[in-house]
Amino acid sequence: MTDMPAFKTIALIGRYQSSGVSDSLRKLGAFLRDRGCEVLLEKETVASSGVREFPGADYATVGAQANLAVVLGGDGSILHAARNLANYSVPLVGVNQGRLGFMTDIAASSMYENMQSLLDGKYALEERTLLASEVHRGGRSIFGAVALNDVVVNKGAVGRLVEFLVHVDGQFVYDLRADGLIVATPSGSTAYALSSNGPIIQPSVPGFALVPICPHTLSNRPITVSDRCVIELTLKRAPDARFHFDGQPQFDLSEGDRVVVRRAERTITFVHPPGYSYFAMLREKLHWSGMY
Amino acid sequence: MTDMPAFKTIALIGRYQSSGVSDSLRKLGAFLRDRGCEVLLEKETVASSGVREFPGADYATVGAQANLAVVLGGDGSILHAARNLANYSVPLVGVNQGRLGFMTDIAASSMYENMQSLLDGKYALEERTLLASEVHRGGRSIFGAVALNDVVVNKGAVGRLVEFLVHVDGQFVYDLRADGLIVATPSGSTAYALSSNGPIIQPSVPGFALVPICPHTLSNRPITVSDRCVIELTLKRAPDARFHFDGQPQFDLSEGDRVVVRRAERTITFVHPPGYSYFAMLREKLHWSGMY
Amino acid sequence: MTDMPAFKTIALIGRYQSSGVSDSLRKLGAFLRDRGCEVLLEKETVASSGVREFPGADYATVGAQANLAVVLGGDGSILHAARNLANYSVPLVGVNQGRLGFMTDIAASSMYENMQSLLDGKYALEERTLLASEVHRGGRSIFGAVALNDVVVNKGAVGRLVEFLVHVDGQFVYDLRADGLIVATPSGSTAYALSSNGPIIQPSVPGFALVPICPHTLSNRPITVSDRCVIELTLKRAPDARFHFDGQPQFDLSEGDRVVVRRAERTITFVHPPGYSYFAMLREKLHWSGMY
Amino acid sequence: MTDMPAFKTIALIGRYQSSGVSDSLRKLGAFLRDRGCEVLLEKETVASSGVREFPGADYATVGAQANLAVVLGGDGSILHAARNLANYSVPLVGVNQGRLGFMTDIAASSMYENMQSLLDGKYALEERTLLASEVHRGGRSIFGAVALNDVVVNKGAVGRLVEFLVHVDGQFVYDLRADGLIVATPSGSTAYALSSNGPIIQPSVPGFALVPICPHTLSNRPITVSDRCVIELTLKRAPDARFHFDGQPQFDLSEGDRVVVRRAERTITFVHPPGYSYFAMLREKLHWSGMY
Repeated sequence: MTDMPAFKTIALIGRYQSSGVSDSLRKLGAFLRDRGCEVLLEKETVASSGVREFPGADYATVGAQANLAVVLGGDGSILHAARNLANYSVPLVGVNQGRLGFMTDIAASSMYENMQSLLDGKYALEERTLLASEVHRGGRSIFGAVALNDVVVNKGAVGRLVEFLVHVDGQFVYDLRADGLIVATPSGSTAYALSSNGPIIQPSVPGFALVPICPHTLSNRPITVSDRCVIELTLKRAPDARFHFDGQPQFDLSEGDRVVVRRAERTITFVHPPGYSYFAMLREKLHWSGMY
Repeated sequence: MTDMPAFKTIALIGRYQSSGVSDSLRKLGAFLRDRGCEVLLEKETVASSGVREFPGADYATVGAQANLAVVLGGDGSILHAARNLANYSVPLVGVNQGRLGFMTDIAASSMYENMQSLLDGKYALEERTLLASEVHRGGRSIFGAVALNDVVVNKGAVGRLVEFLVHVDGQFVYDLRADGLIVATPSGSTAYALSSNGPIIQPSVPGFALVPICPHTLSNRPITVSDRCVIELTLKRAPDARFHFDGQPQFDLSEGDRVVVRRAERTITFVHPPGYSYFAMLREKLHWSGMY
Repeated sequence: MTDMPAFKTIALIGRYQSSGVSDSLRKLGAFLRDRGCEVLLEKETVASSGVREFPGADYATVGAQANLAVVLGGDGSILHAARNLANYSVPLVGVNQGRLGFMTDIAASSMYENMQSLLDGKYALEERTLLASEVHRGGRSIFGAVALNDVVVNKGAVGRLVEFLVHVDGQFVYDLRADGLIVATPSGSTAYALSSNGPIIQPSVPGFALVPICPHTLSNRPITVSDRCVIELTLKRAPDARFHFDGQPQFDLSEGDRVVVRRAERTITFVHPPGYSYFAMLREKLHWSGMY
Repeated sequence: MTDMPAFKTIALIGRYQSSGVSDSLRKLGAFLRDRGCEVLLEKETVASSGVREFPGADYATVGAQANLAVVLGGDGSILHAARNLANYSVPLVGVNQGRLGFMTDIAASSMYENMQSLLDGKYALEERTLLASEVHRGGRSIFGAVALNDVVVNKGAVGRLVEFLVHVDGQFVYDLRADGLIVATPSGSTAYALSSNGPIIQPSVPGFALVPICPHTLSNRPITVSDRCVIELTLKRAPDARFHFDGQPQFDLSEGDRVVVRRAERTITFVHPPGYSYFAMLREKLHWSGMY
């Protein structure tokens, strides 16, 4: 172990306006600077936190210059940062500001100890797949989005069910009448898909889960398909359908629209401190200890 | 068996504009008149069907004068008629115009034969429970509805989850974060609730099912409570919640609103032709024959 | 409130050999005697505990003389006592010796306080339905049992699936190929049936749940039928089927056997201390507080 | 396309004694011989079918000499053949003798047409993963098996639940009390695991599903882990546990036994005729067309 930190330039990201986060950003920034790191503060974070001690940097700059991005917040903050850094190769680490997240696995209470481990080169890298999705209407792509967790097509305001034709690699899978359909990455398998009876998928499994929401047939079941597949949802009946990615504000869909989902070219890398265990995190988050 | 028909005055109801229904109404009306019945045509049906051969009657008149109401349509038509006749004691029978319904159990192809059986006094009566629900805001009841299938509170246009406090007979049951919650009668247990993993409940069981939609806790399960209970949903967090009954157009809810659901005082009576079997209907509708 | 205890003669039951239970039996017996109660000790309990301070009584004597039976143990002890007292009208109360049970709702730590409330007449009564089941072979009834939780027919040692014909009130319900089938009372709905995706049923709902175990058809779902129904399982293919009641040691079944299950004539009454809530018990036992 | 058949030496396998299979074996053998193939008949098949027209060959010989093995039977026959040929590289094709199987996708009625396509070189190859499992007791491996579908540890004759510690790659996953646990390949995901609420996994996804059977905790969910993982089940409480592979006769387990499951080194290759679609097969087998 030398004096040189394992990550030279570190960007700090913290989305929510709260004095707690501002204070943590200040202290963590000082801690990292003291250890020889260059510290950047992501621009939206500068605006929302009011912290001015570190140079601001937009996501393009973070992507180009940082060797590590530290996200202070919850899983929502990680999702936001991951989508914005999808075109770059900077790895992410999450420090939760309240309760443990599926992706923000460092507790605020052990932040300095864990950050020191990372600077000392003690960490594990984990690659996470992203979804690239496009909405096609009348032969043209009219909307595109990248998602870390999931792409969802579901019913909207009026609450009428949606009817889809689902194809995988051009092969017809099923005609689904349901409240909606979730296409989830392994990361997303513990998010919305789980509440709709989807299977949990270990992040190293290269697959996507197709999980129907309240399907109007009793024999439908979630399927996991290869992440090399192209998934295509054609809206057959959709008086009131919407498109969501990572729970983000919706995009209205019309009958005949095709939503095409595939693996994004780039991936996101998570940095985990020593002792991290995916299964331990699941046990704690999902309360697996409880028996009856 | 005498020449006197078992049902003296019969109201015909058929909601959808379609020449098929008009024709069926005309023929069925003539068939019944020939057998000594007085035939009324429900007013909305007169308007939509253009059939003028029989005296029109609003639901109040149907409720006061008819001994039987025959609904030509699907389960949606039965739901509509049942709610409109909830304050009267006229029994209902459903003739499906296409595929078998859960509640429209006479096929169009065997309509005359089955109607003759009914006129001959060969039938079984089945009582179905209705839900009476009210929305309370700021101490006042601001909306009320009667439902045969279900009362649903769920997320709306923006798609943000709803958080409820659920009480039964004043006792706290759970704090639920979910896409929504369904309160279903036995009739409704084979409708929307079934697609959300609710249990099937035989109509003679005096209970209501509480079925969460995509709950954010893995340990939640549907519960069936006595139909003598008062069920109360208090909206704790509801940026975007809506109230539905029998799938009808929604009513917007706000934080703090209380939705109170109980058994309606009156019930609806279904008339079934000889040979009707609830379980046979389930097998056919739910494709129970299919094994893998 | 007078000095007269609400329950004059109280039987104590505690099945397991453990010094802890012996000690609790001695102390509770003395406590009750001090308050003017006559105390009986169930005979198997005398044998297993070695406690000799109180007159021993077999279940027939307990049934005839006691006004209350206090069970020290877990839910298994309550099940055992309930079956043995099914022909009598003595109410039961359960004191758990370790963790909270679904039916042993008084904690050992608050035993005296709760027993005092009961003696003071502060309690609620709750009636629980029992199942009466019989196995018919070649036209004769060859085995009978009463159960508080459930009757289960499932595969045995070799592990070959069972095929049943299920009838309710003589009507064919379905032909089921599965690992087994559970018929559960509301009490049993939170026991084995729950681990097989059965619905929770509030004890006041007069219904029984039919819950398949690993069914070989995707469209099967649990059904709740009226507790006035007669349920009949005919074993169509059963190279290796067994009959269980309340998890008790099995009885081997053969092809052609019919298992007939109905509501037992008598019920069991539970005594609950002040403050008891079925829903609070569910929340605690099922860990409903845990969200993700 | 030349006159040379795409598969020079073809072994025929048909396990069940039935004149139908004998006849099909004779005719198919003659058909293949006419087209220039050398035909071998697997030895058990010779014994059970009585067909003597073709040279008999044990599985080692089939594995060494055949370029294709044709299995006439159901999915059980394919499972049996696949395990016996696991150490060789001969690809398999299944011709179902009754209803469509998940793995016997050629119908008897179109057998010749499809076999001709295969001989003409028109086919698709699909690789299927196998499980290699070992039972360790007291530090020694006492039993080993290869499975195409699944390895199951479950309760046996007496029906007492099993308690496991589950580890994946040495990391603790959970402490499970259940009727059993299924480790399924993608092939096995549509077999027993599916009846226990397991997820469907496309065969090209390199993962294994861990599916609990009737777990005694409401928050357990199936997990899919990478097929590069080593899965280890340690029996913590097992008065009556058994080990099964592909539904084969059980092996008794004791407390402390460790069942270690990993990807087998070799895979099995399936040959599919033109027009085969995994999703079409699922739709037909699982009755996905049925909506309610």
